[in-house]
Amino acid sequence: MPSIDINCDMGESFGSWVMGQDLELLQYVSSANIACGFHAGDPNVMLNTVRAALTLGVAIGAHPGLPDLQGFGRRAMAVDAREVYALTLYQVGALDGMVRSQGGVLSHVKTHGALYNMSARDPSLAEAVAQAVRDLNPQWSIFVGNETMARATTALGLRAVREVFADRTYQDDATLTPRSQPHAMIEDVGEAAAQVERMVREGVVRALSGKEVPIVAETLCIHGDQPGAVQFARHIRAALEAQGIVVAKA
Amino acid sequence: MPSIDINCDMGESFGSWVMGQDLELLQYVSSANIACGFHAGDPNVMLNTVRAALTLGVAIGAHPGLPDLQGFGRRAMAVDAREVYALTLYQVGALDGMVRSQGGVLSHVKTHGALYNMSARDPSLAEAVAQAVRDLNPQWSIFVGNETMARATTALGLRAVREVFADRTYQDDATLTPRSQPHAMIEDVGEAAAQVERMVREGVVRALSGKEVPIVAETLCIHGDQPGAVQFARHIRAALEAQGIVVAKA
Amino acid sequence: MPSIDINCDMGESFGSWVMGQDLELLQYVSSANIACGFHAGDPNVMLNTVRAALTLGVAIGAHPGLPDLQGFGRRAMAVDAREVYALTLYQVGALDGMVRSQGGVLSHVKTHGALYNMSARDPSLAEAVAQAVRDLNPQWSIFVGNETMARATTALGLRAVREVFADRTYQDDATLTPRSQPHAMIEDVGEAAAQVERMVREGVVRALSGKEVPIVAETLCIHGDQPGAVQFARHIRAALEAQGIVVAKA
Amino acid sequence: MPSIDINCDMGESFGSWVMGQDLELLQYVSSANIACGFHAGDPNVMLNTVRAALTLGVAIGAHPGLPDLQGFGRRAMAVDAREVYALTLYQVGALDGMVRSQGGVLSHVKTHGALYNMSARDPSLAEAVAQAVRDLNPQWSIFVGNETMARATTALGLRAVREVFADRTYQDDATLTPRSQPHAMIEDVGEAAAQVERMVREGVVRALSGKEVPIVAETLCIHGDQPGAVQFARHIRAALEAQGIVVAKA
Repeated sequence: MPSIDINCDMGESFGSWVMGQDLELLQYVSSANIACGFHAGDPNVMLNTVRAALTLGVAIGAHPGLPDLQGFGRRAMAVDAREVYALTLYQVGALDGMVRSQGGVLSHVKTHGALYNMSARDPSLAEAVAQAVRDLNPQWSIFVGNETMARATTALGLRAVREVFADRTYQDDATLTPRSQPHAMIEDVGEAAAQVERMVREGVVRALSGKEVPIVAETLCIHGDQPGAVQFARHIRAALEAQGIVVAKA
Repeated sequence: MPSIDINCDMGESFGSWVMGQDLELLQYVSSANIACGFHAGDPNVMLNTVRAALTLGVAIGAHPGLPDLQGFGRRAMAVDAREVYALTLYQVGALDGMVRSQGGVLSHVKTHGALYNMSARDPSLAEAVAQAVRDLNPQWSIFVGNETMARATTALGLRAVREVFADRTYQDDATLTPRSQPHAMIEDVGEAAAQVERMVREGVVRALSGKEVPIVAETLCIHGDQPGAVQFARHIRAALEAQGIVVAKA
Repeated sequence: MPSIDINCDMGESFGSWVMGQDLELLQYVSSANIACGFHAGDPNVMLNTVRAALTLGVAIGAHPGLPDLQGFGRRAMAVDAREVYALTLYQVGALDGMVRSQGGVLSHVKTHGALYNMSARDPSLAEAVAQAVRDLNPQWSIFVGNETMARATTALGLRAVREVFADRTYQDDATLTPRSQPHAMIEDVGEAAAQVERMVREGVVRALSGKEVPIVAETLCIHGDQPGAVQFARHIRAALEAQGIVVAKA
Repeated sequence: MPSIDINCDMGESFGSWVMGQDLELLQYVSSANIACGFHAGDPNVMLNTVRAALTLGVAIGAHPGLPDLQGFGRRAMAVDAREVYALTLYQVGALDGMVRSQGGVLSHVKTHGALYNMSARDPSLAEAVAQAVRDLNPQWSIFVGNETMARATTALGLRAVREVFADRTYQDDATLTPRSQPHAMIEDVGEAAAQVERMVREGVVRALSGKEVPIVAETLCIHGDQPGAVQFARHIRAALEAQGIVVAKA
């Protein structure tokens, strides 16, 4: 049967500040990308999130970001490859320790925010991330959303898990329509699910231009920090399953 | 042959700020306790320190502290056992990841500053530290300087490595003379080495009162952040070796 | 006409994390205690909150706390009087600059969380806070909830504004019933308003024991970070005004 | 008599980490740019530095930077004009409060590191800095090292104090020779002093090409964080005074 993973960023609360509805969302995803303390998350939040994911059998990934709590890791920073290598080791190592200590196994790594975007543009940063992951554990996969990160990942013998979006439209080159442009978002859950179904079953997405574009869909990213996130997650999962698509970890 | 480990806190620089003379001190110690980013150290500093220790064959320990850079982890904070468990997992996991990524193996854990002192007074905090270490890797030892931490460590089946000081005098109950009291420090390196030799060979220390007190000396703590630290390290190591005592990791 | 101030902690969001419903609450309070970046708040949040308070004519106070974002300034830390003096200068100075830059005038200072509690127990810390406020501007008042802080404030010639609570019961010595004890909270808004009315009109509060205890009520503290906070604020203000009590800045 | 100010960044220690030799350098400068806690400095360090400067009669400026302790404010970050406005208000307000509390008066503002460089390239950021300074106190000057910041400063009616360097060579457009190029530095103190003398007396600098370039020299920046910094400061000041140039605050 055709299948796809559903992943969501989690553990992005910090101290007294709550973000997202992790416990509800964990019921609908198969992979949780857990923040590692640099852009969000603190040791207490991380541990609670790891435990909740393990209880529900959700696969756990590390979600490292730039050291910028105030900016939630979304502000680009001039860090070089050596720094990215070190901060990836640190954060992924910290989360991996948490997971192992609770009897679990880390599955994957997905970079956050500006680190994700910077790695898409600068091969040396993508290579630094991939090298850190490989040096920690070559069994872990990396969730990738662009060719730069994909190449850096596979070049080191790691598995690159291709990420797609249900609620975003695509361009002719299989990249996302920038949010600043019209029709970047797909509001209707039915349409969103239909887009994912074609990605999974046929390996194509219909771009905004109408062109049919080949695409590999191994994991579907949903967002947890938006109003209606839980409802969207429930609906998209139900719609996929109704179409005979299995939701399972990548 | 009789032997003792020599340990020193390291990797306590942060960003552009340098502390200690790690590269020099690494030549004289057998164990390095490397700061994990909460009281000192950052991912770059940690990685450089791990690499230097591995190059010189010095055993590596994690040196977790309270989340207080400005106070260098020396200010007591009202953290409970649950928080200590989580912050120990996080920091030790982060350093362990660094060490493994570079082909090394973590050997031990030693708490820093206020976390060390708080764990000496509050058994629930000592137990939280020990539990975190055991849940990460029961092969790791904990360097202990007080009975509370020692009991928490051995109660979980972990090895407690007993720490002594060369340059401090002792009380009749085998605790250190507080620095606020006269004759707390031993300035002369020869005297300091003689004190350690008796600890190692005979298992006793002569307390300030003159009383002979039983003591277990498995690792000798030296300080890296004082003027003359490198010279003291070189002298104490040479003196111990001249007395036929082997310096080797615990 | 009898009157009382209503104050509420505000500006306690941080980066992407939202706390409280400041814009709604600002409609019902006469004084806003704005967090200064150490336990909560960042420059963007502070500036937005200052502007909103100025627009609505709400008096602005600085709300300094301990340097502990993760603990929200609620974890006691071993800081001495010299450090408290400096961190109060820093935070109050920062907020004062923001207020002046927007054409406003700072009115008061109220310490937050653990700093508030530590100042209640340790006169040297209360004196450090008061000294910092006086050295910045002797026109500013300090909102005080205990005798230690009140004495330190008036000893330096500053005005101490006495704070009371509507939704908490009192002991025979005019201190709050600890939350750990039964009947610490007053759930009914009518009862809460009635308690404040007696405080304002008669200068007494009926303690849990039934004893009538003298009390000075100059400002009423309401909490913004609880569910129902906006509704409670609206109700308590309406109830006080219905009783002929003017709500006005202290 | 011809005169020039000498300024130096100070107060860049943090907690237990020491940077620079502020007390020695304060004897040779006429203006101190004091770090404000975001890239370096903490409230204790700031207060001590303010007091030392006041004791020695050195003019005090605020030295705000990006919120990046680990990177010492030297890593560019994607902050927009609104954020720069707020973080400038915050930091300058905090230092201004410290200075006023100790009976002094703030004189100027000079941005640090990446914030300095970003403001040189992006007029909207330069305008945000200048607007924050003007909204706090239009009497304060801004130390500027480029045309973008100079224009933003004077456009708001603030005084721009032109900064020059003794130990750096210049290009034909009066900008500094990048450190990555040969002959960027002037090692010889006599040559450095001679360059400054011409700048002050004649308003020209001989560029690397040999061309005589007009330049305005109102304040001379010296660096405090390099080996030999104190000796360089003493020599350059003595050389300037020997040439009949008065060293005095801008």
